[in-house]
Amino acid sequence: MTTTLSPSLPKVDNTFRKSVPPLEVPERLLLGPGPSNANPAVVAAMNRQPIGHLDPAYLHLMDEVQTLLRYAWQTANQMTLPISGTGSAAMEATLANAVEPGDVVLVGVNGYFGHRLVDMAERYRAEVKTINQPWGEVFSLQALRAALEEHRPQILALVHAETSTGARQPLEGVGDLCREYDCLLLIDTVTSLGGVPIFLDEWKVDLAYSCSQKGLSCPPGSSPFTMSERALAKLDKRQTKVANWYLDISMLRNYWGQGRVYHHTAPVNMTYAIREALRLLAEEGVENSWQRHQSTAEKLWDGLQDLGLECHVPKDYRLPTLTTVRVPEGIEAKAVTKRLLEEHNLEIGNGLGELGGKVWRIGLMGYNSRPENVDQVLSALAAVLAKLR
Amino acid sequence: MTTTLSPSLPKVDNTFRKSVPPLEVPERLLLGPGPSNANPAVVAAMNRQPIGHLDPAYLHLMDEVQTLLRYAWQTANQMTLPISGTGSAAMEATLANAVEPGDVVLVGVNGYFGHRLVDMAERYRAEVKTINQPWGEVFSLQALRAALEEHRPQILALVHAETSTGARQPLEGVGDLCREYDCLLLIDTVTSLGGVPIFLDEWKVDLAYSCSQKGLSCPPGSSPFTMSERALAKLDKRQTKVANWYLDISMLRNYWGQGRVYHHTAPVNMTYAIREALRLLAEEGVENSWQRHQSTAEKLWDGLQDLGLECHVPKDYRLPTLTTVRVPEGIEAKAVTKRLLEEHNLEIGNGLGELGGKVWRIGLMGYNSRPENVDQVLSALAAVLAKLR
Repeated sequence: MTTTLSPSLPKVDNTFRKSVPPLEVPERLLLGPGPSNANPAVVAAMNRQPIGHLDPAYLHLMDEVQTLLRYAWQTANQMTLPISGTGSAAMEATLANAVEPGDVVLVGVNGYFGHRLVDMAERYRAEVKTINQPWGEVFSLQALRAALEEHRPQILALVHAETSTGARQPLEGVGDLCREYDCLLLIDTVTSLGGVPIFLDEWKVDLAYSCSQKGLSCPPGSSPFTMSERALAKLDKRQTKVANWYLDISMLRNYWGQGRVYHHTAPVNMTYAIREALRLLAEEGVENSWQRHQSTAEKLWDGLQDLGLECHVPKDYRLPTLTTVRVPEGIEAKAVTKRLLEEHNLEIGNGLGELGGKVWRIGLMGYNSRPENVDQVLSALAAVLAKLR
Repeated sequence: MTTTLSPSLPKVDNTFRKSVPPLEVPERLLLGPGPSNANPAVVAAMNRQPIGHLDPAYLHLMDEVQTLLRYAWQTANQMTLPISGTGSAAMEATLANAVEPGDVVLVGVNGYFGHRLVDMAERYRAEVKTINQPWGEVFSLQALRAALEEHRPQILALVHAETSTGARQPLEGVGDLCREYDCLLLIDTVTSLGGVPIFLDEWKVDLAYSCSQKGLSCPPGSSPFTMSERALAKLDKRQTKVANWYLDISMLRNYWGQGRVYHHTAPVNMTYAIREALRLLAEEGVENSWQRHQSTAEKLWDGLQDLGLECHVPKDYRLPTLTTVRVPEGIEAKAVTKRLLEEHNLEIGNGLGELGGKVWRIGLMGYNSRPENVDQVLSALAAVLAKLR
């Protein structure tokens, strides 16, 4: 006979027992800074029961994800894996593992995510130095050399693709500089992976992170992370434990490596998704994906010009994945994004930080980087601007 | 005319361009320590395109999740929300936000997850003290009082449901003790939320965390977190920034609260899933879910006895969600779990830590807590044991 729950238990309070209908979600075209729409095949891949995070079938998926991620990033780094969270978690993982208290970290700040790197690095008790550029500009090799010479950091952190400004930081030669100054090179590829040429090993990058919901055409929740042998050597020499348990690569490597030692439960269905996303990217080929992003973006830029709108970033280092468009005088930026969402089910982004109110951010990333989406955003934007002018 | 990618780019290396087939995943019955099988309605809820994390429709879902989570936990805490990661991230969030360097944290260690709390708290530079019991035992109020008297901690951390041992820590009266000693009460409800009676406010709990993939019948990746006004007051008085950017509630509260200030991109599809899971729990009613877990577990315990197997934890504080079964002499524990998986597509867990090789762990959690699953695990276990004996 079954035990009934103890009568001495308190009475259940139903104040928050809200009756809500089954989930309904509006269908949006996501052309903002991310998330982007996922490839339908990737969404479908999530539509499965989870399996155990130590199941041999799951371990096999982990291996596949690692391999395909190395391809996407053009790196042979053994320690290449997805972090169990969204992009900011992978960002934090690079700093948490690389920084020891007192390390000098030099951060290139030319947008919102540079500021975030500063904030994070400080929490890991780094001595943070910055080199600065206006939002939308990039750093020259000469400026980087001068800053390395001045600050002699253990780590130089740069944002390859600044999601807040739409600028692409050229990385050719930066890795060589970092070797010369004996520091690690850490880069943010959140808005470049899959959509913009990246050659991590060729560029001698030591630490990088990204996200799943942009160039990889996957929902957010599983975030690429990689570290080189040089970065691992620094990890191995730490005097202190990594100051973040969840993101500690010195433990995670035993789960992703031969040992298969349980660390934390994996977000299993997100692994299904990113594995499918990376499979599709390998099927397309990274060069083809990069070229597709470039072509789609140029179609957008031409169309914006036809509408009399101006891009914020010079074409030389303008990202194909994320375009910042200057808000014309007399137009309230947020009124436009609100109408686009409400009247056209189309999301584009508002400006962040210094560029708040000054630009819109249009993303054409991953599965969304297609000419028909350019037509849609241009015609919707034209319609809304016509009403407001 | 579209620009072709620069010919000066390095050549793409196809070493890791592995051609893999579309995803296939074996169908398993997951009766281990988690993940459990998700409710099919919850998996189906994920099968949608993401929307933006600042979309009004998404903000509405966030409110619903918060409300329903308060019901599940029986708390009115404003600061109740899912963390963007798996259970260990929510665990770390409680410590990261509550601990300032030098704080004394008293941890009840009677299993694997108590040890993990120690490890995490140390990384946030707490002065950690422990009170210990053999794995499978629990702490008496008297023992807790003596330890509070001796160590005068700022935080007492206890595991309500020890996933490694299957023991349920009684919490009646512990909150009052903590008020008396002016410390916060932090509890792990990873294996209890949804399946075991919990009354956070009645018990005067200040910080708690859980996961999605057990009693909530959801895939892993979105993890309940809550903190009381007392815990928030400590956060507000911090002298130092929270030493973890991703999990910093002093920033996250501005996203989950009125301000709706962007912090990090949410794992949108996981929010769809946990919202559906919490909706179904509210529909069933927590008392009914707790009773169902108790009844299903008792059926298992009876059946194990019929097979001549013994439970590791006395019935008084044995969890209904997770049962540790002693491995009979002469049987190699892992050989059994391996065969169950390979021959029956059925996952149960091996012992962890001190109980490695000594017990199996059988979970009957959330959607999986049903009599037919008990029949299935008992018959599979009987069949495998018959072969090995």
